Amino acid sequence: MLLGRVAGTVVASRKEPLMEGLALLLVRQLDVDDTETGSYVVAVDSVGAGVGEVVLYASGSSARQTANTRDRPVDAVIMAIVDTWEVGGETVYEK
Amino acid sequence: MLLGRVAGTVVASRKEPLMEGLALLLVRQLDVDDTETGSYVVAVDSVGAGVGEVVLYASGSSARQTANTRDRPVDAVIMAIVDTWEVGGETVYEK
Amino acid sequence: MLLGRVAGTVVASRKEPLMEGLALLLVRQLDVDDTETGSYVVAVDSVGAGVGEVVLYASGSSARQTANTRDRPVDAVIMAIVDTWEVGGETVYEK
Amino acid sequence: MLLGRVAGTVVASRKEPLMEGLALLLVRQLDVDDTETGSYVVAVDSVGAGVGEVVLYASGSSARQTANTRDRPVDAVIMAIVDTWEVGGETVYEK
Amino acid sequence: MLLGRVAGTVVASRKEPLMEGLALLLVRQLDVDDTETGSYVVAVDSVGAGVGEVVLYASGSSARQTANTRDRPVDAVIMAIVDTWEVGGETVYEK
Repeated sequence: MLLGRVAGTVVASRKEPLMEGLALLLVRQLDVDDTETGSYVVAVDSVGAGVGEVVLYASGSSARQTANTRDRPVDAVIMAIVDTWEVGGETVYEK
Repeated sequence: MLLGRVAGTVVASRKEPLMEGLALLLVRQLDVDDTETGSYVVAVDSVGAGVGEVVLYASGSSARQTANTRDRPVDAVIMAIVDTWEVGGETVYEK
Repeated sequence: MLLGRVAGTVVASRKEPLMEGLALLLVRQLDVDDTETGSYVVAVDSVGAGVGEVVLYASGSSARQTANTRDRPVDAVIMAIVDTWEVGGETVYEK
Repeated sequence: MLLGRVAGTVVASRKEPLMEGLALLLVRQLDVDDTETGSYVVAVDSVGAGVGEVVLYASGSSARQTANTRDRPVDAVIMAIVDTWEVGGETVYEK
Repeated sequence: MLLGRVAGTVVASRKEPLMEGLALLLVRQLDVDDTETGSYVVAVDSVGAGVGEVVLYASGSSARQTANTRDRPVDAVIMAIVDTWEVGGETVYEK
């Protein structure tokens, strides 16, 4: 999984039927020191994340292992909202 | 998933039987600010996307989770046409 | 999928039994303007591609979705020989 | 698999139900000469690794092949703690 | 698949039970001209490869398609020892 910050939303009305009802969020990837890496992903939200929140997301087939992404053409899912992380005993981020 | 712009088409007459009947589109990857990243993918179209349109595509095994890509040797699929996306409350792209 | 040009062949006599009888081709990845990117892959040929030909290849689990790669330890397959591709209405490559 | 050093921990209270009870560790990727590459991953711990330890981690669907990650939205797992590795007959790292 | 040269070995005594009995080799990735790329992977050996040998390895779920890696948390496997490869009719490497 990778750390990311929800940066925005994507709206798509014409889509695969299996994509109906899924919230699509733009997530900027974060480095371990809480800086943006420049990479992003559009992920399905499975935990009610909002813009600005720090999240964990999973990619690939693992992204289809949640109740609302199973068997859908989805390769990234937000499956946790991060409260805090620490590196070497120091808190890097706290919600 | 990633954002991309359909740049063109690929024609291949000699192919795996399982590839018959699939539309192959060249998609240039877009960054969150709607600039091209320099990366591309050849994706199967599952939503009737046209050249110039902004789309969402899924990669890997997730690309086989649509009606017309299931069980086929396909690792990228366009499964939505993007209407709009916004970052930090500002619209970056609108169809 | 990605575009590539078949650059050569790989011979391996000592191998997993499941690899018997598969043709292994060296494929250089092509960019959308038909230049080489510097990346390559060794792919199983499922369409009778020859050195110098431009092909489409699929990676990951999708590479196991052809008759001769199913259930084999293969992560890249050539599943089409490209006739032509165009970008923005102009032909970039023609066989 | 890749070599990594456990750098810290991630805490997330709001998450997919399937993520309950999993320890999330921040792992910095190591190069073969035991230097950090700059990349990282958040991996589920399946072997009781602690901060500072050198580990092996697997990514993608392979990360779901342990007792505590099966069928969960997890794309990286620590499945071994490294005792030692050597390159060209010389020990690079020893626990 | 990619070409690599076996550079060394990894020893891990504390590990997932499913990792018991697998030989872990450090493999440096090779370019098509037989130079090292700087990337590496720790792969399970399924063909009895030794340090210094040039091998083919598969990644991702395809790495679980051999008798000794099936259903294990393994994302890279050596499944062939390379005898020779050629590019443009010239032999680049010969065992």
